[in-house]
Order: sequence, then C-alpha cells, then structure tokens
Amino acid sequence: MAKRVVVINPNCTAIVTEAISESVDVYRGQDARIDCVTLEAGPPAVSSYFDRSNVAAPLREVIERETGADAFVIACFGDPSVLAMREVARVPVLGMAESSFYIAMSVADMFGIISTTENATRRHHRQVRELGIQSRFAGDTSIGMTILDLRNDEEATFERLMDAATRLRQAGAGAFITGCAGMAVFRERLERELGLPVIEPAQAGVTLALGIAAMSTRR
Amino acid sequence: MAKRVVVINPNCTAIVTEAISESVDVYRGQDARIDCVTLEAGPPAVSSYFDRSNVAAPLREVIERETGADAFVIACFGDPSVLAMREVARVPVLGMAESSFYIAMSVADMFGIISTTENATRRHHRQVRELGIQSRFAGDTSIGMTILDLRNDEEATFERLMDAATRLRQAGAGAFITGCAGMAVFRERLERELGLPVIEPAQAGVTLALGIAAMSTRR
Amino acid sequence: MAKRVVVINPNCTAIVTEAISESVDVYRGQDARIDCVTLEAGPPAVSSYFDRSNVAAPLREVIERETGADAFVIACFGDPSVLAMREVARVPVLGMAESSFYIAMSVADMFGIISTTENATRRHHRQVRELGIQSRFAGDTSIGMTILDLRNDEEATFERLMDAATRLRQAGAGAFITGCAGMAVFRERLERELGLPVIEPAQAGVTLALGIAAMSTRR
Amino acid sequence: MAKRVVVINPNCTAIVTEAISESVDVYRGQDARIDCVTLEAGPPAVSSYFDRSNVAAPLREVIERETGADAFVIACFGDPSVLAMREVARVPVLGMAESSFYIAMSVADMFGIISTTENATRRHHRQVRELGIQSRFAGDTSIGMTILDLRNDEEATFERLMDAATRLRQAGAGAFITGCAGMAVFRERLERELGLPVIEPAQAGVTLALGIAAMSTRR
Amino acid sequence: MAKRVVVINPNCTAIVTEAISESVDVYRGQDARIDCVTLEAGPPAVSSYFDRSNVAAPLREVIERETGADAFVIACFGDPSVLAMREVARVPVLGMAESSFYIAMSVADMFGIISTTENATRRHHRQVRELGIQSRFAGDTSIGMTILDLRNDEEATFERLMDAATRLRQAGAGAFITGCAGMAVFRERLERELGLPVIEPAQAGVTLALGIAAMSTRR
Amino acid sequence: MAKRVVVINPNCTAIVTEAISESVDVYRGQDARIDCVTLEAGPPAVSSYFDRSNVAAPLREVIERETGADAFVIACFGDPSVLAMREVARVPVLGMAESSFYIAMSVADMFGIISTTENATRRHHRQVRELGIQSRFAGDTSIGMTILDLRNDEEATFERLMDAATRLRQAGAGAFITGCAGMAVFRERLERELGLPVIEPAQAGVTLALGIAAMSTRR
Repeated sequence: MAKRVVVINPNCTAIVTEAISESVDVYRGQDARIDCVTLEAGPPAVSSYFDRSNVAAPLREVIERETGADAFVIACFGDPSVLAMREVARVPVLGMAESSFYIAMSVADMFGIISTTENATRRHHRQVRELGIQSRFAGDTSIGMTILDLRNDEEATFERLMDAATRLRQAGAGAFITGCAGMAVFRERLERELGLPVIEPAQAGVTLALGIAAMSTRR
Repeated sequence: MAKRVVVINPNCTAIVTEAISESVDVYRGQDARIDCVTLEAGPPAVSSYFDRSNVAAPLREVIERETGADAFVIACFGDPSVLAMREVARVPVLGMAESSFYIAMSVADMFGIISTTENATRRHHRQVRELGIQSRFAGDTSIGMTILDLRNDEEATFERLMDAATRLRQAGAGAFITGCAGMAVFRERLERELGLPVIEPAQAGVTLALGIAAMSTRR
Repeated sequence: MAKRVVVINPNCTAIVTEAISESVDVYRGQDARIDCVTLEAGPPAVSSYFDRSNVAAPLREVIERETGADAFVIACFGDPSVLAMREVARVPVLGMAESSFYIAMSVADMFGIISTTENATRRHHRQVRELGIQSRFAGDTSIGMTILDLRNDEEATFERLMDAATRLRQAGAGAFITGCAGMAVFRERLERELGLPVIEPAQAGVTLALGIAAMSTRR
Repeated sequence: MAKRVVVINPNCTAIVTEAISESVDVYRGQDARIDCVTLEAGPPAVSSYFDRSNVAAPLREVIERETGADAFVIACFGDPSVLAMREVARVPVLGMAESSFYIAMSVADMFGIISTTENATRRHHRQVRELGIQSRFAGDTSIGMTILDLRNDEEATFERLMDAATRLRQAGAGAFITGCAGMAVFRERLERELGLPVIEPAQAGVTLALGIAAMSTRR
Repeated sequence: MAKRVVVINPNCTAIVTEAISESVDVYRGQDARIDCVTLEAGPPAVSSYFDRSNVAAPLREVIERETGADAFVIACFGDPSVLAMREVARVPVLGMAESSFYIAMSVADMFGIISTTENATRRHHRQVRELGIQSRFAGDTSIGMTILDLRNDEEATFERLMDAATRLRQAGAGAFITGCAGMAVFRERLERELGLPVIEPAQAGVTLALGIAAMSTRR
Repeated sequence: MAKRVVVINPNCTAIVTEAISESVDVYRGQDARIDCVTLEAGPPAVSSYFDRSNVAAPLREVIERETGADAFVIACFGDPSVLAMREVARVPVLGMAESSFYIAMSVADMFGIISTTENATRRHHRQVRELGIQSRFAGDTSIGMTILDLRNDEEATFERLMDAATRLRQAGAGAFITGCAGMAVFRERLERELGLPVIEPAQAGVTLALGIAAMSTRR
C-alpha cells in the first residue's frame, strides 16, 4: 500500500511550498504520495528562534488533523519544533536540515552547508553540535544574498554558489547542502559542475520519511 | 523510471542473501527494483578485519559487472570495503551498518546496537568513532548467541533480545539496531513490545540507496 | 545602583514560584532585587518539548512588560525558549539548568544530575550535548519519585537522594545538581552529608544573572 | 552577612593588582567585600608553565593566612595552580580564565579570546581542551602587542582589538574575552562598538566567587 | 653513539626509584644508557595537585644539572610538571602516564587503567581529557589497595588485578595500564593470563624517550 | 637478545623501500635488527582505499613467512590493512602514520601533517577521526607536488615545506609530520630551521615497534 508523507512548510508563504513540492516530485510514484501544505498560521519566514518555538501550536494542529499521514516532514532548515512534534505525532516526524545532514553523511566523509546570509552560520553551528556530528561538518559558507535575490541574475548567483562550494571543498567537504529552498533550482547544475553530491534538504527529508514509514509498525 | 538497487551479501552463504532479500521486500515496487546477490568468492562469513579487506577485489568485480545498478548496498554489518567501493563505482555505495545508524538518528536522539556475541562490541566502538557519532551511541549489548542459535528456541531468543534492548534503553537508547541478519525476523515483534523503533540494517541500506539514487545526477 | 533580576517560572503553578523565591532569597540584598513571577498562561508543568516551545509567546509578553529588569532567569530545568527570549530581551536571559552546569563546572571537574523520574534522563543527555559539555557530565540518576512525592516521607526521600549522589560520585561527579525545584529543601543537608557542592539551579541562574547584569553595558 | 572574596594576583607586579581591583569595583557593595592582594613571592609575570607551577607554594601561604575569606580568585589568565589551591583551601577557589569561559558561555553559543601575543594561543588551546569546552571555542586571536604597549597609542590599540574581535565573530564568536588584564580599560568601548558581550576575566572570577560563596555551606 | 635517558622519580622514596630502574632494565644496552634518580627534595609521594606543582623547582635543578642527558622521563603517573620541564630542558621530556597511553593506543583500540585507590580515578579522567583521548579510554578501575599493601598477599593482589582488568575488558579495553609503580612486578603474569598487552608506564616513558632522542636534532 | 623488526613497504617500488631503510638506519644497533622488505605483489603505490584493502592478502603472506620477526611496521602513510594484520600476526603490528601521530603527541600539544597533494587531506581527516585524536590535530597542508617532483629543485621544495609548516604552526602545531617517504631527506633541515620537532613516520613506526617488542611477552 502506498505511503503518504505530509510535508509542512512552517511559514505562510505559499510560493515556498510550491518550490518544495516541485523539488520532491522525484519521489512521487505509485507507492508514494506526497502532499505539501502551507502553515497558514505561520510567519512569512521562520528565521528566528522565537519563530521556531512559536510554530509549535499551529504545527500540532496540522499534525492532529492529518490523520492519514504515514510520516511528516517539517520543511524549514531550522528544523523548528521537530522534537515537540515527535511527542505529538503517532508517526515519524523528520526535520529537513537534520535529514540532509544524514543523507550527506551517507555519501561523503564531511559535508558543508551553503547559506544565503551570515546570520544563519551561528545557528547552524549549534544545530550541528546539538546533533553531535561536528566532526563530519566541514563548515558553513554564505553567499551574501537573501532568498529574494537568488533569481535576479542566475549566472551571478551560480558563480557565488560555486565559490562557496569550492571553499567548503578545500575545508574537506565531499558533499554539499543547499541551505535555502530557493537554491533548489541550482542543485543539478551545481552537482554536475562540482562532480560531487549536492543535497536538497526537502528531498532528503521526504526520502527518509518514505523509507522510515515503510519500515515502521507504528500507527 | 524505476531505480534499481543491487544488494551484495559479501559472504558466500546464500541463505543469508535470502534473508536479506526477504527483509527488504517492503521496498520493492513499481518504482524500485532490488536485486540481492551473493558474493560467491567471499568467505562463509565476514567476521574479521582481514575478511573485510579481502572482499574488496571480488566486490569490485560484481560492481563492475552490474552496470545497470543505480546504487549498491554492501549488506554486512562490518561495512566491509565500502570506502574502496565508492572509488570504484560510478553510483552511490551504501554500507548497511552506517545506514542503520543514520536511520536510527533520524528517529531518536540516541541508538543502541543489539549484537550476537561480545566479539563484535570492540569493532562497533571503532566503527562508531570512525563515523564521529559517539555522542549519539548509547552502547552495544550482546545476547551471547551466534547467528546459528537464534532460531533454536525463538522464545528464549526473544527474551534475550528484550533484555538487551531494555539495558540499552536505560543507557539512553531511543532506537535499536539489530546487529545481525538473523535477527530480522524478530524486528516487528521487538518494535511492538518496546514501543520504540527497531531498525533492520538491510532495510536501512536499501531505503537510503533508493532515495539517494533518485536525487543523484551521477551515471 | 541595585540590579533587578526577574525570575520567571514558566509554569502556572504558584507554589513552585514560591519555592524558587525562597531558594534565591540568599541573593537578595541592598544591591540586588529579585522578583519571581509565575507565567499565568503557562501549563501546570513544563515537561514536554511541546511545552518548552509553547511558552515562548507568553514568556515574551512578560519580558516585554518587565522593562525595568536588568536580567531574566527562566526558572525551569528544561531551559524552555531561552534562545528565543535572548532575541527578544534587551538584557541577558539565563536558563537555570545551563547556569547550574556552569556553576558546577566552576567548582568540580565533573558534575552529575539528580532527577525525579527516568523520563528526564534522555532530555538531559541532549541538553548537555547541545551545550557541548558532555566530557564534564558524569551522568544523570533518577530517584523514581515525582515532585509531588518528595515531601511525603522526607527521610526516605533523603535516602534516595544520597543513593543517587553516591552512584554519580562513583561515576566521577565532584558536584551535584538537584534537577527539580522540589529538591531545594534538601540541598544543604545533602551538601553537608556528601562533603561536596550541591547546586540548586534557581540559585545558579540568579547569581549568574546578577553578575552578568553588573558587568553589562546593555540597556 | 557580607561575603568576602580575596583576589590574588599571582605575580609581584602591584600595578596589575590595582588594575584588577579597579575592574572588579563594580561588585563591591554592602554584601560584598573584595580584597585584591599581590603575591610578593611571585614572579613579575606568570607567563610560563614553570611559573604556573612554581607559584603554588606562595599561593598556599596566602590562602592559609586569609582565614576570613569566603572564596578566592586566582587572577591570572593561565589559572595557575588552581587545582592545587582547591585541595588547600576550605572555601571555593576560582580561576579567572575558566570563570570567563563560563560567563561567556552563559550569554553566547561560542566565545573567542583576544590575546596580546601569539605565544598565548597554544596554551589557550590546551586550557580549553582540558576543560572539555572546545566546541564552544571560536578561536584565539592575538593583536601582536605586549601588555606594556597597550597604552602607548590607545586608538591604535583599540583598532587592533576591533580587528581581532571581528575575525573571531566571523569564526562564530558571540562573546569575547579580553585575555590580558591590560585590556580591561577597553572593555566597555569594545562592547558598545561590537554590540556583543565582552568579558573581563577578573570580573568573571569575582562574580562567580561571590555567587558560589553565598550558596555554599562550606567553612 | 649511545643515547642516555635520565629517569627522575619525583618523590624522595628511593625504593620506588629502584623498582623503576629494575622495570626499565629491559631497555638498557650498548646503545642505551638509562639512569634513574630520586628527587631528594621531593615529597615521599606525589599524590596531590599541590605536590605536582611543587616539584617543579627541584625537578628543574636536576634537569639543569644533568647536561649529558638526551631525554628525560618524569616517572610518576600524575605526569607532574611535565609541561614546565619541557620549557626548561633542551632535550625531550616525557611523562610516564602520557607515554603509557600512547603505547597502549599503538597496540589496541581502547585502553583501561588499573589504579590502587579510588582517589586516582577523578584525576585520571581529567588527564585523559586534557590529552584529548577520551574516546580511546575504556575506564579506570581501582583495586582498593594502597601501594604499601600490594606485596602483603600476592595471590590476593593478583586476583584483584585480574578482576579489575576483566571489568575494563568488558568495557572495551584491549590493553591495560598498571597505574602504580608497585604493580610492575605483576605485569608479565597479568599479560600472559589476559592474553592482551599490559603496559608498565616507566617502560613506556623510557622507550619513547630513547626513540625520540635518536630522531631528534636538538642539543 | 636483539629484537628484529620487519618493515614492509606495501607497494612494489623498491626505491621507496630503500629510502625507508635509510631513514630508519638510526635505530639499527647491537640490540636492534631492522629488515625492510618490498611487497612484490603490491601496487606501484598504495594511494586509494581499494589499494589499502587489496594489499591484505599479500601482506599476510609476508607476515606468515617472517616467523622470526618480533614486530612489524606497515610503512605506508595510509596504514593499509593494519587492523587486519594485527589479527594475523602473533607479534605487534604498527602503522607508520598512526605511530607518527603518537610520537608527535609525545612532544607537542598539537601536530600538523605536511602532504604532497590535496588528495590526501580528506583521507587524513578520516584517519585522525578514526583514531579519536582530532583535538590534537592542527591540520593538514599540502605542498602541491607529487613524490616524483620533490627532488627536482630541492630549494624550491624546501621553501614549500617551510611555507606549509609555517601555516600549520599558526594553526597551533608544535610538531610536524612529513606525510610522504620522499620528504625524509628534508627532515633534519626542516627541524633545525623551524626549531620544532619534525617526525618522519617510518622512524616513528620502527621505534615504537622496537620498544613494544621489548616489553611484550607475546611469541
């Protein structure tokens, strides 16, 4: 029987949900149904620790309503309220950043994160330490652009992404994680140019969710 | 297009290959073809570091022959020659122990390994350290039985498995890994009784292989 | 000029706030004003990850209202929403568990935590890892009693506390943390009997808050 | 009753003792008496591991003489003989570097140290490792000036301090420690300019000493 | 040309020096001269942190006097003042505990320490952390006897040593370190009985000293 | 009785064996016989993980044939099949990279590796993590030359070696390891110029092998 994964974009920006849905389309099939939903009660973007905490209540509502889900993915790189949602849900709940780390670790000894702005770096260090995987972490490099600027001049953006990846590779990275949903469209080209795996976190979260749902006896 | 994963049992014992094939059946489907092969040139069991090294040459032959594979899983808990095979293969190569660690880490803060005999414990400590995930590792507990004894008295075996899991849970484990192919048949019952995830490594390897193959542009 | 610390009990149980206030009385003085407030909108107890996230919004209200505070202490051993409140507050915000760890580390090489029930143990492991201080952590031992039972038979409780401390000392602990507000009344006797420091987290949070407020130029 | 902290400058340079006394003045009050003493038998500066060992005997004399102290602070960034003095003293003994690390960790995820010369860097790495807090350590940056040069051209010194802090911030530091008593006079200006906490180690040692003395039943 | 190693017993108990000299006799030869000296000005035993610091001055005198030495070994398990003596000496200075750790790590994945009394355990934890080798450390087990009691009933002592080693082996140790000079006489028998390496620290220090002296261009 | 160490160069390039033999000549003497052998069945160079695994079988043959050896050194910086050979040999087996790390750690707080090309860096990171000594590792810097180019222009090579060492020293290294047999001829000059120890791995392996053979009762 097909497994159904519900991907929750914890911000209220529907265009991000659409980008996520497009990215994870590769996993849809006869055995896998993937529904991407927008958290209407969420903020426009989940960019602070306060936002990460504050989406717990509306996320719980979605999870309690989606009784037909076999697994959930919280699709925001901050993995907001994932531990809280694991208490609430009767099925597995995956965070997309955490998932991308493990997928990267499955294919390379060390991974690096490409971020939009420097503000994210400090938080990523703490996330990686909380998960106890610092020795697999080659670093976090930002390209100095917000999500809104990524599509302005795609060649310029691509060049910055390559620069960031090159610096991370010199620091030991053998796989790269695009730390922003807006970078998903550049993933394939980056991977081909670098000749090394580039992981898109929403894909990472969904494939783990499908795989874990299939092996689980919970529900 | 369906992805095809080739699972290589690196020992020459066909009955183990069959057990693996049965365990991963849950992942077969219209989008996923999974072929399990026995390494004819391998030893009856891969239980020493020498065996782990020595299977490199015959494993390479299989990998070079299987040009239609989208990913490989080396299906032995020692993850023998996985780094070497990644150099050889043009597609992702997953080790099943490493995969089981990451799947366990995706659903719980700390994991424990249930082993057959005490001999395995020292090696598991080194494996976990090599992967840099010691702080997620609650320990390794053996049940004092070889793979051959597991089916003699299934109730007695199950009791020992529960004892081992209970000790690991007290040490902080929130997920459990069955460190021997022969334990696969007890997985579901263990999971239900414990109320916590029990991971079967071949399943972990296969689901990661399928997921990574689908996101990869390599080949 | 006297510094004013506002201690927020993030649950709505006023009797806990009173116990905290009594415990930190030792720091009140001409130079130090300490106000303990109850989070009316909080749950009766903050015992889950969901509760920890969910108190962010009401905590922010208190912090935004208490414009005269020189520092805040979130007085719950889970350190709920501390990172979020640091974004919100213009003055230092201390978590009481984190504070107790650092105070213990200031007087001993390794510390141990005495908990009420086993449920807390897993969470404490993650807290300690997130803070990157695992190698100073001798362990967490529970006494198998809830906060409600602690005063039923004080001699029996004290005996269990001593048992837990003794096991932690054998594991290397040179200082002990009482992981529950209800244990504060036993602190002095435990310290005298053990001949080693026993840290009460609310005291730890308040003294750090006063000290940091005094050195800070913020506001 | 007021607590009395004795701060021992383990070198024989009285002007350093005066600078320390001035820095910790913020903690003096009706409840807190702070006496700063110079170790007459100490070397002009404690800059080698030999000096750190060699001050043990004269430090013990001071500690045994100061029977009215409620806590001691060894006011040298090398934390010389702190472990030895804890054996000797009947009250808490704090090292000022160690104290500054914990105070920094109480307000930021990662901290950096600003040193005078490169010679100190190697020793700080070992100190941080000995304390097991490497994952909170963003690094150590020297300004290439000795303590004697700091006041020659204060604007030039301040510029170098800002440069060092900026590099540490890029490496993830959210709080900064002035690794030399002579930098204390620049602390406030640095903190205002950076908008992030700058910790002066003598202040850190004294506030922990006062706080721990107040909670302790020892004596 | 033969290398000359000077082994300094930092306590004033000549009988310990003799035991050390006998133990390292295996390394004496045409190419290796080993002189063992007693620190007359040292305490009867170096058992506290204060003693470790306080021997720095007399140790320096010996080192400055022994101008013909190619390397020094400080022969006390606390590795007292080793860092300080490295500043003073123009040739390599080895600590015997540190040396025994590295020799053990050269032959086994994890090592354990057998101590006399429980007092040593805490200090060993800190030593191991300071050296950054915790993940190779299986633990420290004491036999509950002082150095003076070891020869009273040798069979009883041997039994306790075997018990301690057995517990350490269960914790993962593949090599064992005798943490007291008085245990040297039991080394060979222990090693044969266990079938695993048992390291005597004075031997470890001397062989590293000889080897490093031979490769060094210093002097 | 003299100890005999057999050093196995696991590649089939005899000129490398000769360089190794010359380097370890300093340890030959009346008490120490050192035989260096070339693995005829090995590859021209052991540069991949596949090669590391694949030399296990021919290495075992050498070890089983050399029944008169008191210890073996596998003389390749990748430490190929060392764990496997420990299972096979009845005497100690040392890896030369691992040995060089411990020798470096015996004389300095942190060490750095000077490599030929960047390809080695990633593998060294994993080697260091597997051994659990990351916090002693200051980094790995390559000079961008293959082993074949080192002797072309010796002054230019020396300059690059000094550059690499200087960068590693700035990162905290107090000892340096020449990560390629071809660098052995530059060791002494580097050490004199730097004023800090430079370790040649074959020497490190041989001295540990001799020392451990002398203390061992195995055989």
